[in-house]
Amino acid sequence: MRVIFNEELGQVADDMDRMASSVRDAIHSAGHALLDPDVDVAQEVIDGDARIDKLESSIIEQCVRLLAKQNPVATDLRVVVSTLSLSATFERMGDLARHIAEISRRAYPQSALPEQVLPLYRQMQDFLDTMADRLVAMLADRDAKIAEQIIVSDDELDRLHEQSFNYALSDQWEGSKQELIDMVLVARFMERLGDHGVSAARRVVYIVSGFDPTKDPKALDLDLD
Amino acid sequence: MRVIFNEELGQVADDMDRMASSVRDAIHSAGHALLDPDVDVAQEVIDGDARIDKLESSIIEQCVRLLAKQNPVATDLRVVVSTLSLSATFERMGDLARHIAEISRRAYPQSALPEQVLPLYRQMQDFLDTMADRLVAMLADRDAKIAEQIIVSDDELDRLHEQSFNYALSDQWEGSKQELIDMVLVARFMERLGDHGVSAARRVVYIVSGFDPTKDPKALDLDLD
Repeated sequence: MRVIFNEELGQVADDMDRMASSVRDAIHSAGHALLDPDVDVAQEVIDGDARIDKLESSIIEQCVRLLAKQNPVATDLRVVVSTLSLSATFERMGDLARHIAEISRRAYPQSALPEQVLPLYRQMQDFLDTMADRLVAMLADRDAKIAEQIIVSDDELDRLHEQSFNYALSDQWEGSKQELIDMVLVARFMERLGDHGVSAARRVVYIVSGFDPTKDPKALDLDLD
Repeated sequence: MRVIFNEELGQVADDMDRMASSVRDAIHSAGHALLDPDVDVAQEVIDGDARIDKLESSIIEQCVRLLAKQNPVATDLRVVVSTLSLSATFERMGDLARHIAEISRRAYPQSALPEQVLPLYRQMQDFLDTMADRLVAMLADRDAKIAEQIIVSDDELDRLHEQSFNYALSDQWEGSKQELIDMVLVARFMERLGDHGVSAARRVVYIVSGFDPTKDPKALDLDLD
């Protein structure tokens, strides 16, 4: 029974890794298509989202089967329930990458963002690229240390996000209404990607430690020297 | 065992009803504070979100305990897994209502939205008020008919959402940049509230029928005469 459980759980974990890798690729490509307008790359992200959705369905099915047949308890149950939540989080991240790609596709061959804010959005994208890489590594190794890095570093993205709004409201802003709308939406989608990354990281901390950092973030011992 | 299961599941269902009612109130109040600026009501929504979050945590805990101790299968398992997903959806709806309330609070005593778009946003809010009422009724009676109404009517909200963007881009638009930003964000939050309502409705269809309409929405037999 135990052997079967571990085998089946291993398969779910493999699918979860595949899902995380697909989401990482989507985030990288969506950023690329946004900052160096490329309609083919944008289209790839949009088309690829269906594969991410399919992985989520498959993971849910496997988890439900595991719950029914193996009646996991304690840590095993924590892993299965967290996997359900993780797959929903990654599915949503795929949607957000697709939304960014859709904005780039609509603006093409123009850039969706005015020249003057590109450096700021490049910083936000760099941040998300790093986060996406960390998410994949975190899941592959179930590494709570990487999870903590993701949680702590999100403040930086929030700061950049606020900066983009302040810039848009300042006299320096020279873009059109359409550019303002796109900028606000892209910033929002990027901020949400960061939030979902943090939520995934918290799940992994929960799996590893049994401690749910959503309940009292201050109680999370952040040892990041 | 079965009696205990039904009793415990009944408690979870009660909490789920409470959560849906709290979210409905938050949606109603956030709309009120937005359309007839009222900082006290906005603050109530913002403060009340913590209660919604707490209900989610309690529901998750109860579901995990049920899974561990009762090993539900078939329909019972479907209910428990769907409840986990429903509670996450409602938690997110609470966040979105809070975001709308935060925008109203920041703009107070001014309206966050310019006069000229208020009728359109009132229409969107009327739509969300109806949806929120339906969500509560749907959950209380596990009524797949109401769930189908929610799913079908969401197109209307998407249409209004698009209209608000077209209006902002037209020559008729007279608002400031801050108003444009707030309008885009509020429209986005409202659209997401609608999406989450649809997702909750699909879950209930799944519980009742065993058929997952997310997989092939066209296969859902919509008998709404």
